[in-house]
Amino acid sequence: MSAVLEPDLTWTGAGFEPRVQIAIDDAGRIDDVGSLGRPEASRLNRIALLPGFVNAHSHAFQRGLRGYGERFPAGTGSFWTWREAMYSLVGSLDRTTLRRLSTRAFTEMRDAGITAVGEFHYVHHERQGDFALDEAVLEAARDAGIRLVVLYCYYATSAPGRSLDGAQLRFATTSVDGFWQRIDRLSPMLDPATQSMGAAPHSIRAASPEDIRAIHQEAVRRGLPMHLHVEEQRREIEECRAAYGRTPMAVVLDAVEDGAFTAVHCTHTANEDMARFLAAGGVGCLCPLTEGNLGDGVPHLARLHAAGGRLALGTDSNARLSMLEDMRWLEYGQRLRGELRGALPDSEGAVAPTLLAAATTGGARALNLRAGRIAPGWWADFAAVDLAAPSLADVPADRLLDALVFGAGNEVIAGTYVGGKWRATMGTMTP
Amino acid sequence: MSAVLEPDLTWTGAGFEPRVQIAIDDAGRIDDVGSLGRPEASRLNRIALLPGFVNAHSHAFQRGLRGYGERFPAGTGSFWTWREAMYSLVGSLDRTTLRRLSTRAFTEMRDAGITAVGEFHYVHHERQGDFALDEAVLEAARDAGIRLVVLYCYYATSAPGRSLDGAQLRFATTSVDGFWQRIDRLSPMLDPATQSMGAAPHSIRAASPEDIRAIHQEAVRRGLPMHLHVEEQRREIEECRAAYGRTPMAVVLDAVEDGAFTAVHCTHTANEDMARFLAAGGVGCLCPLTEGNLGDGVPHLARLHAAGGRLALGTDSNARLSMLEDMRWLEYGQRLRGELRGALPDSEGAVAPTLLAAATTGGARALNLRAGRIAPGWWADFAAVDLAAPSLADVPADRLLDALVFGAGNEVIAGTYVGGKWRATMGTMTP
Repeated sequence: MSAVLEPDLTWTGAGFEPRVQIAIDDAGRIDDVGSLGRPEASRLNRIALLPGFVNAHSHAFQRGLRGYGERFPAGTGSFWTWREAMYSLVGSLDRTTLRRLSTRAFTEMRDAGITAVGEFHYVHHERQGDFALDEAVLEAARDAGIRLVVLYCYYATSAPGRSLDGAQLRFATTSVDGFWQRIDRLSPMLDPATQSMGAAPHSIRAASPEDIRAIHQEAVRRGLPMHLHVEEQRREIEECRAAYGRTPMAVVLDAVEDGAFTAVHCTHTANEDMARFLAAGGVGCLCPLTEGNLGDGVPHLARLHAAGGRLALGTDSNARLSMLEDMRWLEYGQRLRGELRGALPDSEGAVAPTLLAAATTGGARALNLRAGRIAPGWWADFAAVDLAAPSLADVPADRLLDALVFGAGNEVIAGTYVGGKWRATMGTMTP
Repeated sequence: MSAVLEPDLTWTGAGFEPRVQIAIDDAGRIDDVGSLGRPEASRLNRIALLPGFVNAHSHAFQRGLRGYGERFPAGTGSFWTWREAMYSLVGSLDRTTLRRLSTRAFTEMRDAGITAVGEFHYVHHERQGDFALDEAVLEAARDAGIRLVVLYCYYATSAPGRSLDGAQLRFATTSVDGFWQRIDRLSPMLDPATQSMGAAPHSIRAASPEDIRAIHQEAVRRGLPMHLHVEEQRREIEECRAAYGRTPMAVVLDAVEDGAFTAVHCTHTANEDMARFLAAGGVGCLCPLTEGNLGDGVPHLARLHAAGGRLALGTDSNARLSMLEDMRWLEYGQRLRGELRGALPDSEGAVAPTLLAAATTGGARALNLRAGRIAPGWWADFAAVDLAAPSLADVPADRLLDALVFGAGNEVIAGTYVGGKWRATMGTMTP
């Protein structure tokens, strides 16, 4: 299965370069990159290769809400009324449905240039206590050929001190020990070439500080990443202050003794908490399309950005799957918030590289993956851009990244490689 | 050229319906719609037809900035520093370039489901006083086969009482009389089946209240729509207050004696001005992708929405051409601003019909076009949606509009009809 690719243009980190060959080994890793002069190289005409996008936060099953949850007969809705619709979907899931919906979501991700996904997986039970739905996620990722990090979810309470109820019973983990036993049971089923795991206490609503502390300690010992939802909604902060006298971010940082983790959303995180989180090595995962859909609000990202390399992107509810759209709206949210342009520039003042980094290296950091770069030793995961696409016409190579991030969408993704294996984007049919 | 079409599903205004036939006459208008039982009908398999999207505000030549204007070596930018980059492009235009860039923009619009465009055209001169660039816009629209309303721009000053300078000299109109003479010169060159005109005093910076009054009177007499940029940036409001002691919206409303017009942006329009504008019959044209890109800010749309049918959408700078993306971000801006969901519901609580109306009937109202509906007497302008697209899989007909608006993008647009003439979307190539 080893191969050598030579696209018209290759993203090498500093820019798009011509005449670069990429040698891929039998294991699906990049062997060598550069002017290799390998005559057997496959020429990829009119194609630019980027590192495949890394989606650091997904709930694949929520693809089942596509077209739902957008009507408000009782008046204005909220995150919390949307959650009722989502819980109703949860109630209807069985193993077959979960696998089918997840495969749909993962396949759409590949069409959007995404080659790796952190699946924040909390719907464990088909029947009480059975954990039958866990394997469906592995199967779906294999069906779609996407690289998967199962962010295995710990979910014990509906709010601090309150037991689970209704659809939430499908999320239940009984104890921290039981949680690690489930992970140990699932681990041998992973495809070692494309699948790995992380630990994910759902949120401060679902896990106590003590449990978060214990999970973090064991995750560190095992070398696994830890992810949590943090401060997406103001109500979460109010409830946490009432229960613990501190913000969710402060509670988690106290619990993990200023260890590093990935915090998803951080929509309403206070500056002093963010500073402490970043000093601890944290990564912030933003989900602009979902946060817009759910009306969460726009965070102020100046500190997170200034820390360098700490931004990741997630597609979260998968209401819309387009990483290029998510990339530009990460910046546009800041522009609209501050009434300015160029909110997230790199050291040379360019914004697009920041947004690409969030969609590649930032996500890879959050998921502990050797992905997001086209460099020897990294996975051969690429997004192939169609240079003949009308939205990229007349754009020179040194402006291609800007044009992609600000001016293009899924329609320019010709296909993706995961571990060196090609999959073409589903074509649009003409009648 | 008459034809009868029978797609799988047809948007009839209330919903998507099966087994509807659409008869189109030789002139490119819809003759009849319904269960016509015409055996010669062309079946459009796996296609849903929507009214083609109406783009109420475009500057097509700005497609030449694709990939540019997104680097900020001198620190944070603004609308005004972006305008310098745009003026530099203006300086480089000749008739051939303007036609080529405009054709690119109009063709990309068709790929995004847009069948009619209001081209707010202000770059008139190749050489001083020649108006050589006006015809290029007509030619480009003909090349792309898009329905065109030339919103012919009046541009006399750079700010109240200040003469034009630099690139702005290319915009110059000498007098209101001269402006109408140019329109009279251009009118015979229009294709009557697909091209019409409107009057567009650029903004309160570029036109005096007296000139706006005179242009509005003559536009009303001729039955032409009038458009202006209004209150996109706070600086415009400050400068206008300094010059006239009132907001731009108030100055324009006073000038036109509370006549109707289309105001583009209204980002910072005060509630009392908006109430008066709406009472006068005005339409507000929002441009979410451009307003995000330029960091204009998010307007509060409650009044504009409550007035019913007064929202239109424009792609403005054409940095990104996707009407579906613009539709959802119109709602998402309101959700993020208010931290709620369902900001722009219709009378039954559904948001997607409001957003579709902005992209169809609202734009048609702003441009004075018989477009935006699939009904007898209207133009046969349609967007054809690929029902086999992965992003629409599993979505039933009664949820299709929600799924399109919130969950899909250009990749589902199989092609468009303008005046009954089909054009397939450019396909994505596989290597």
